[in-house]
Amino acid sequence: MNLPETVTINDVMLRDGLQLEDKILSVDEKNDLAIRLIEANVKTLEVGSFVHPKLVEQMSNTGELFDRLKKYEAMNLITLIPNLKGAQRAANHGVSQLNFVFSASNTHNLQNVRQTTEESLLHFETIKDFCDEHNIKLDVSIATSFGCPFEGEVAEERIHFIVKRIIDRKPNTLTLADTIGVANPKQVYQLTSSIINLYPNERFNLHFHDTRGMGLANILAGIKAGVRSFDTSLGGLGGCPFAPGATGNVCTEDVVHMLHSMGIDTGINLDDLITTSAILRDILGHELSSSVLKAGKYNRKYPIPQ
Amino acid sequence: MNLPETVTINDVMLRDGLQLEDKILSVDEKNDLAIRLIEANVKTLEVGSFVHPKLVEQMSNTGELFDRLKKYEAMNLITLIPNLKGAQRAANHGVSQLNFVFSASNTHNLQNVRQTTEESLLHFETIKDFCDEHNIKLDVSIATSFGCPFEGEVAEERIHFIVKRIIDRKPNTLTLADTIGVANPKQVYQLTSSIINLYPNERFNLHFHDTRGMGLANILAGIKAGVRSFDTSLGGLGGCPFAPGATGNVCTEDVVHMLHSMGIDTGINLDDLITTSAILRDILGHELSSSVLKAGKYNRKYPIPQ
Repeated sequence: MNLPETVTINDVMLRDGLQLEDKILSVDEKNDLAIRLIEANVKTLEVGSFVHPKLVEQMSNTGELFDRLKKYEAMNLITLIPNLKGAQRAANHGVSQLNFVFSASNTHNLQNVRQTTEESLLHFETIKDFCDEHNIKLDVSIATSFGCPFEGEVAEERIHFIVKRIIDRKPNTLTLADTIGVANPKQVYQLTSSIINLYPNERFNLHFHDTRGMGLANILAGIKAGVRSFDTSLGGLGGCPFAPGATGNVCTEDVVHMLHSMGIDTGINLDDLITTSAILRDILGHELSSSVLKAGKYNRKYPIPQ
Repeated sequence: MNLPETVTINDVMLRDGLQLEDKILSVDEKNDLAIRLIEANVKTLEVGSFVHPKLVEQMSNTGELFDRLKKYEAMNLITLIPNLKGAQRAANHGVSQLNFVFSASNTHNLQNVRQTTEESLLHFETIKDFCDEHNIKLDVSIATSFGCPFEGEVAEERIHFIVKRIIDRKPNTLTLADTIGVANPKQVYQLTSSIINLYPNERFNLHFHDTRGMGLANILAGIKAGVRSFDTSLGGLGGCPFAPGATGNVCTEDVVHMLHSMGIDTGINLDDLITTSAILRDILGHELSSSVLKAGKYNRKYPIPQ
C-alpha cells in the first residue's frame, strides 16, 4: 500500500460544521476554538462565510471573527463566499483566501444560490478577476460532485467540463465536494484519478460527509487516487442547510487518527485536537459524532488509558 | 480500482452483537431476527455461543435457539465455542459449523479463556479431532490480531506463527479479528496480504470493530488485500465483554450499502436488512450506531425519499 508521507487537513468546523447547529456561537467562542485549532497546528481553517446574514444566522459574525484573528493572517484562514458581494465584504475584513462554492447540479445550485451552474461559472470569472486585482487567493469548491439530493447521479462528464472551466483560470485549490454523503470509494477513486491525470500540477482537495459511514474509506480512496488535501470538521459536525438529509462532515480527529496510525503525518497535535473537540461538545451541549473523542486514541504502547 | 464481483457477509449480531447488551433477548426474539436475516439472504450467520452460561448470560439460550432453527441447517449457521466442552454441547444441538476463538495475545487470552495462546493452540488440535470425527466444520478466529487492550502491539511474526499452526490442520475458514477496533487500513493490508500470499488457497475472513471509525476503510483495505469474507453486525451492535474499551462491530447494513454502491454483490436484500435493523432497535429500545438505518440508503434515481 503506497501512501504519501504527509497530507494536509483543512478544518471546516467553523463554517460547514456550525451551519446546522441551533446554538449561535459568539465571536468569543469561535475565536477561542479557532486559536485552539491553530495552536494544534491545523494548517488551514475555513472560518465562517460571507453569505447573507438572514440566510445563515450562524455565520453573521464572520467579519468580526476575522477582525479578531488578524494576527494569524499568515495562516491559511479561508472563508466561504457565494458571490462577488461576499468576496467584497470578505476583502473589507482583510481576508486573504476565499472559497467560492457552487453546485455541479443545476437544481441544487438554483436552490442554494439561485443561479444555474453556467451562471455560477460566469460569476466565478468575475470573482476571479476581483481576487486577482486584490491579491486574494481563490479556492473553488464544486458541491454535489458525487451526487445531488434532487437530481441523483451527476455525470462525470459534467464534472470534467466544470473542472476544466475552473482550471483554465488557475484557482488556488479545487475541491470536489460530496455535499450529501453519497460518494463511495470506487467512485471517488475513479472520478478524482481521472481528473488528477488530466491536471497533474493542480492542487485538488476533497470534501466528504460521513452520512452513510463511508467518510474514512473515501479519504483512503482519495489518497490512493493522488489527493493530498482534505476538508474535515472537528467533532464530525456539519451539513448544508440547503441539502435535505445532509449530516456531519467527516470528523477531523478520526481522520487525523487514521492517518497518523498509517504513518501519514499531518503536522497536527492529535491530543490538542481531541481536547478542543471536547470543548466544542461542551459549548454545544450535545454529543458529537466523533469516534476518537468517545473511544480515545489508540496508543500501541499504553493501550489501556492509565 | 480492481474490485471483486462478490463478497460474503457473515452477520455476527446474534453473537458478538448482543454480548454487551443489558437486555437479554428471548429465544423467540432471536429466532425471529435470525429468520429475518436468513430471508434477507445473509448467507452465513453466527448464532450465539456455547460458553459457560454464567459468564455471558445473553448466550445461555443458544442451544434452544439452534433447536428452533433446525429447518435452516442447510444454511451456514455458525456458533462460537471457547473450548471442547462448548463443541460437545453444540454438537448435541446438531450444530454443523463451529467458530473456535482464542487470542493472539497471551494476556487477553488468559483474561478471556484462562489459557495461554500456546495452550489454546493445543486445545484447537483436540477440538479439530472432535469436529473431524463428527463431520463438523471448524472455523478459527484469532482475536487481538491487530492489537491487544493489555499488551498493545501484537507482532506480525506471532500472527504468522499462529496462522501456520492452524492452517496445518486445514480449518474451514480462518478469521483475523480486530477485537478492540484499533486496526488501521495500512496494517490490515500489510498483514492480510502477507498471509494470503503464503496461503492463496485457504479461506480467510476479517472481523472489525468500528471503535475509531476505521471499520469501512479497513474492509476496503481487506478487499484490496484479497479477502472476500467479512464479519459484520446488524445495526453495528457489539463488543467483547472481556476487552476494555471495545465498542460496536462494523455495521452490516453500512458495509452492504458501501459494497453495493461500488457494484460488489453480497446477494443480500439491503431493504430487508434495514427493516430488520429497525426491528432490532425497537427490541433493544435504544438507537443503534448504524449510519444507513438513520440516513437511509442512497438511491441514485430517487435521491430524496418520496
